Amino acid sequence: MPRLDINCDMGESFGIYRLGQDEEMLNVVTSVNIACGFHAGDAATMRRTVKAALEHGVAIGAHPGLPDLAGFGRRKMDVSPKDAYEMIVYQVGALRAFTRALGGSMQHVKAHGALYNMAATDDALARAVAEAVYDIDPNLVLFGLSGSKLVVAGQQVGLRVASEVFADRAYEIDGTLTPRNLSGAVIEDVNNAVSQVLRMINEGCVQSRQGTDVTIQADTVCVHGDGLNAVNFARELHKRLVREGVTVCSFSP
Amino acid sequence: MPRLDINCDMGESFGIYRLGQDEEMLNVVTSVNIACGFHAGDAATMRRTVKAALEHGVAIGAHPGLPDLAGFGRRKMDVSPKDAYEMIVYQVGALRAFTRALGGSMQHVKAHGALYNMAATDDALARAVAEAVYDIDPNLVLFGLSGSKLVVAGQQVGLRVASEVFADRAYEIDGTLTPRNLSGAVIEDVNNAVSQVLRMINEGCVQSRQGTDVTIQADTVCVHGDGLNAVNFARELHKRLVREGVTVCSFSP
Amino acid sequence: MPRLDINCDMGESFGIYRLGQDEEMLNVVTSVNIACGFHAGDAATMRRTVKAALEHGVAIGAHPGLPDLAGFGRRKMDVSPKDAYEMIVYQVGALRAFTRALGGSMQHVKAHGALYNMAATDDALARAVAEAVYDIDPNLVLFGLSGSKLVVAGQQVGLRVASEVFADRAYEIDGTLTPRNLSGAVIEDVNNAVSQVLRMINEGCVQSRQGTDVTIQADTVCVHGDGLNAVNFARELHKRLVREGVTVCSFSP
Amino acid sequence: MPRLDINCDMGESFGIYRLGQDEEMLNVVTSVNIACGFHAGDAATMRRTVKAALEHGVAIGAHPGLPDLAGFGRRKMDVSPKDAYEMIVYQVGALRAFTRALGGSMQHVKAHGALYNMAATDDALARAVAEAVYDIDPNLVLFGLSGSKLVVAGQQVGLRVASEVFADRAYEIDGTLTPRNLSGAVIEDVNNAVSQVLRMINEGCVQSRQGTDVTIQADTVCVHGDGLNAVNFARELHKRLVREGVTVCSFSP
Repeated sequence: MPRLDINCDMGESFGIYRLGQDEEMLNVVTSVNIACGFHAGDAATMRRTVKAALEHGVAIGAHPGLPDLAGFGRRKMDVSPKDAYEMIVYQVGALRAFTRALGGSMQHVKAHGALYNMAATDDALARAVAEAVYDIDPNLVLFGLSGSKLVVAGQQVGLRVASEVFADRAYEIDGTLTPRNLSGAVIEDVNNAVSQVLRMINEGCVQSRQGTDVTIQADTVCVHGDGLNAVNFARELHKRLVREGVTVCSFSP
Repeated sequence: MPRLDINCDMGESFGIYRLGQDEEMLNVVTSVNIACGFHAGDAATMRRTVKAALEHGVAIGAHPGLPDLAGFGRRKMDVSPKDAYEMIVYQVGALRAFTRALGGSMQHVKAHGALYNMAATDDALARAVAEAVYDIDPNLVLFGLSGSKLVVAGQQVGLRVASEVFADRAYEIDGTLTPRNLSGAVIEDVNNAVSQVLRMINEGCVQSRQGTDVTIQADTVCVHGDGLNAVNFARELHKRLVREGVTVCSFSP
Repeated sequence: MPRLDINCDMGESFGIYRLGQDEEMLNVVTSVNIACGFHAGDAATMRRTVKAALEHGVAIGAHPGLPDLAGFGRRKMDVSPKDAYEMIVYQVGALRAFTRALGGSMQHVKAHGALYNMAATDDALARAVAEAVYDIDPNLVLFGLSGSKLVVAGQQVGLRVASEVFADRAYEIDGTLTPRNLSGAVIEDVNNAVSQVLRMINEGCVQSRQGTDVTIQADTVCVHGDGLNAVNFARELHKRLVREGVTVCSFSP
Repeated sequence: MPRLDINCDMGESFGIYRLGQDEEMLNVVTSVNIACGFHAGDAATMRRTVKAALEHGVAIGAHPGLPDLAGFGRRKMDVSPKDAYEMIVYQVGALRAFTRALGGSMQHVKAHGALYNMAATDDALARAVAEAVYDIDPNLVLFGLSGSKLVVAGQQVGLRVASEVFADRAYEIDGTLTPRNLSGAVIEDVNNAVSQVLRMINEGCVQSRQGTDVTIQADTVCVHGDGLNAVNFARELHKRLVREGVTVCSFSP
């Protein structure tokens, strides 16, 4: 029976600022990626979010990003592999402490935004991210874009890796996501999104924007926590996957 | 046979900026308090400093401070006990991850600057700091000013506590340090400093500026890592304590 | 004929985070206090807010705060008068450049949050704030709590000063605002708020929580830009003041 | 008679951290580029540095950089032209306020580090930087790498532009600086450096690393303020240029 994790970014508030629909999403997803204070989040938000995730029985992951709060970690920065290693250890360590202080444990690490994208295509950055995660705790699961260099690097250093797919995004013929500025990049019909995910699980491929099928590995699917329709979309996706016989669950033992 | 730990703040560089004589001090002290990125330090400095401490066999502690890099954590801020708890967990967790990644372990936590001073006199802040340390790891040693509320709070939550004394500072009749702007606040003669520390260890008291003896507990003595004469002062203090029969060592098992 | 300015804090968004109902409030108030990047706001928000204020013909002021984004500038910090002077010059200068770049001019400066409160009661801080504003441009209007030390300091250095009052807050017998944690601190009935402001303008006094009248000077009244009812409250206050014969206008020539 | 300005980065300290030999360099150079708080510098340092520059009669420029204190503004960031415009206005405005508060005026703007390099080769960024400077004050002089897109953009928006050259760096055949990791990138012999600058001034060209002459415009030469030999190098360069009949002076009227 096929299995799939549903993950969502979370804990992206900062100080007085609120972002996302964390409470609602915690009822829908099986894993959450919690911001660690560099691109979003702060110590108070991290603690509150870890507590809520534990109460909902949702698996916890760290979501480290670039040190760019004003740009929400979405602007590429020319960080070295050494920089990347160190910013991962720092942020994951901080979140891990909240997890422990609240009696829980951490399941995974998923890099955020530009750091995630850079580590998907740059061998040395991918290696640095993977080594940082391994050095913190070799039992952590590393999330990476399906087919990316980060997935390869994670396997090479000996981590358990989860290949991530997107339900509401179109794919290019090389397996990358269709850039958002291109027409058709975002799949808004939930039926189409469900079909895409089911085919990824059952057949291991996705139809690219160019028409050709691309091989893909679907261990976890990312849903978004902001936007008017985000919660409904995620809830519907979860319900339909279950109805189609998919076991929706996290990677925790 | 009396025992004493010698501790020093360390890892206070940031980015391109360098501060302190870390390498030299690592040959003299038995414990170091490593800045965690809020008042000083950054991820690269934390990693480098943890590595150097492990190579020198010096016990490692976290040195969390207020989020005020421009003020070096020395300006009091009206943080709530909840704020303090959260900033401690965040920073100590970050340093702990570097310690683990490098195969070492963390011995203690010592709050920095204004946070240390506020927690010495404010019951609720002291309690919050102690609970944060306990929740991260109940085996950590909490450093606090001898006779302060932080020492009491640490004992109450069940932590092992190290009472800290100062070799080169005069004391007031109430056991607090003589403010630096008063004449005689700093003891510059190393002989006098050694005598003061020996009396703290052997007799459990210190002569206050007002003349009366004050009860004091000396588990660890703080030396400074900056200033022209800092390394020489610390080296001489260490040598003389050993010569007088004091076992100079950290709290690690 | 009595005159009154209505001011509101604005431009408190940061990066991806949104705060306040700036567009709606710009139709109601006559002056705005724009955050300058320390406690809230960023360069993009400052530019956008200055542009919107100029389009609405609303007078522009800088709203400098403490360097504490996580605490929204509301936590007191032990800053020196020198620190305060420098952080005012820096922030006001930054906003002034946006005002100039967009072809407008700056009317006033109002300190934010804890900096405003500290400068209301501390002579040296009040003097430093006033001197900073004067040194940037002696034609700027300094906003300060009616009866506060900041008002006195502004007059002493030769600035035009606007005494600020609050429509929806109760006053203590010494002229300070009733702390929010006390019952009756916030006036929720708009009729009572309007009556309080009219009496301030027409009679130069306000009835304190203790019952006694307190002398007050009302040059500008502060309304809040967040909260469900904020826009309606401000609109009603503006309308009623006009109906009662008050000229509602800014201090610009 | 040929003229040349000698400029140096300055005011790069931050909080407790000290960097550079500002006092010594102020006796040697004719223009200084003062950091504005994003990549280095803070409000206290800016004020102190502006004051010292005014006392030495040295022309003042703003030195805005990327918001990356940990990376000293040297790591490229994927900022948009809009981002660049706004961060320039913010930073230059802040420095301008200190200049005015101290009774001086600002001569020029020179972007720092990665921002300078990106604006040298990217048309849209170059245009954004030039427009920001123009919008703040059309009388400001814009510094840019000789032959770069920033120089062109400055001329297009109507600014007075100063083409910058380097005394101690080798040039490539396309007029860019030889990357530091290549052998011969840095000219350590002051005689060779002086000869290179004199040829730039007198003949309008420089011999590239590849051997061919490259056309160059020398309005201002950059010298470095850190490193053991920096002050001596700059002093010798200044002396030799004067001896060779060059008028060493800033662009101020």
